[in-house]
Amino acid sequence: MIPPITSLHNPRVKQAVQLRDRKGRDAQGRIIIDGAREVARAMAGGIELDELFICEALCHTEEAQALIASLRDSDVRRLDTTPAVFAKLAYGERAEGIIATAQTPCKTLDHLELPDVPLVAVLEHVEKPGNVGAVLRSADAAGVSALIVADGGTDLYNPNTIRASLGAIFTVPVCAASTVQTLAWLRARSLNIFAARVDGATCYSACDFKSPAAIVLGSEAKGLSDAWYADDVRAVALPMLGVVDSLNVSATAAVLFYEAWRQRQR
Amino acid sequence: MIPPITSLHNPRVKQAVQLRDRKGRDAQGRIIIDGAREVARAMAGGIELDELFICEALCHTEEAQALIASLRDSDVRRLDTTPAVFAKLAYGERAEGIIATAQTPCKTLDHLELPDVPLVAVLEHVEKPGNVGAVLRSADAAGVSALIVADGGTDLYNPNTIRASLGAIFTVPVCAASTVQTLAWLRARSLNIFAARVDGATCYSACDFKSPAAIVLGSEAKGLSDAWYADDVRAVALPMLGVVDSLNVSATAAVLFYEAWRQRQR
Repeated sequence: MIPPITSLHNPRVKQAVQLRDRKGRDAQGRIIIDGAREVARAMAGGIELDELFICEALCHTEEAQALIASLRDSDVRRLDTTPAVFAKLAYGERAEGIIATAQTPCKTLDHLELPDVPLVAVLEHVEKPGNVGAVLRSADAAGVSALIVADGGTDLYNPNTIRASLGAIFTVPVCAASTVQTLAWLRARSLNIFAARVDGATCYSACDFKSPAAIVLGSEAKGLSDAWYADDVRAVALPMLGVVDSLNVSATAAVLFYEAWRQRQR
Repeated sequence: MIPPITSLHNPRVKQAVQLRDRKGRDAQGRIIIDGAREVARAMAGGIELDELFICEALCHTEEAQALIASLRDSDVRRLDTTPAVFAKLAYGERAEGIIATAQTPCKTLDHLELPDVPLVAVLEHVEKPGNVGAVLRSADAAGVSALIVADGGTDLYNPNTIRASLGAIFTVPVCAASTVQTLAWLRARSLNIFAARVDGATCYSACDFKSPAAIVLGSEAKGLSDAWYADDVRAVALPMLGVVDSLNVSATAAVLFYEAWRQRQR
């Protein structure tokens, strides 16, 4: 066994800490994954880990123990650390004793494989990692086929997005693309496109989500771009019965994804 | 016109700043409300404002201007401040030039008035202000009749809850109560009680939400207490088709509230 890392100045530790910032992720082409559950889901999703930092003194959860046990026959590079070194790596995140680094998954629209009757989710201009993560979590739960982040910048794998998704970012097929590319891709696959808009003319519950479909959601601040005002895009709204004029994007997403699921069950 | 407050040591400013902490709110029996929209909704909800701090140099939004115009014939105590004093009051919150203080609304179960076919929401042990606020926002949008915070402590009016609710906390009838009191109150009104549980035996879409009903939600960390395991409480679940085993409480709430709305439309 390799002796544990005891120095805060260890180059591997320093490089991993840089992955907390987008600049570091872009420069190294790597991401950082916090938590045993998230790391396990990354491995289940086919992500090849680069390094796995472990502080056994902090590994109290069953998930952490199960992950460590599963490593015995793998060739993941395991690096044990002292609690002080781990605290530096965790950088204020809930410390669970497990942090991994991995190459940034490089998926494009061409990589997305769809089932016969897909339900694709598109998030345009949604930049808050917590929101992207929450939508991914609902997408995973409701059986969404794929999620495309459109015009969202390319920093899909922000550590906070990974954490808020509970690792679903590694199991739901995801990619980033431009809005123009996304719209062309949806059209090429003849998906019915439903764009959630506060002023949408059709109530969501009157929509037919049973055929191959895409649900497009924008940010609260900016809404959807003009590209989604097209003849073949249906603007749908949730009724707003009270004083607020919109829901959080993750609440809207959950309602729409589950309505599609519900209709498809019948 | 009273001259603007220029001193950071002004006693009214100091007292208002103390309302950021629960201790201060409990001691003074008052709350602090950030933002023009939230303050307007508090007034619309019948909250009597104690003081209204205004920094006109920061009042760029239409909502802020409309609020200021509406004050001309009111007897709200208007206190103008310099930007520096306002920054102290805002305490890192998004500064919009409008902050109010008010007596803490003191509502109990006895104050809740229900329509003929009510849909009541209950949140047990949900303590994160952001989650309570997000559920209130969805409750407002979906036309929920009332929201009861059960065993959540009595600090319902945390400034972050107010903000996350976009002020819906003042327009949706809300109160705090113990779980025992809440259950007795729901039973006395013969509501059908649906408790959202990850291991619930009934799929939410198979539930009949058309009669008078209550939807009970617990925290992610603790789930629901034993009181909700009773013969007259139906355990309902959302299907979890992927790897995550639960949704965020605000996503679950949105799906259930809108499913009830949808069923009631037909």
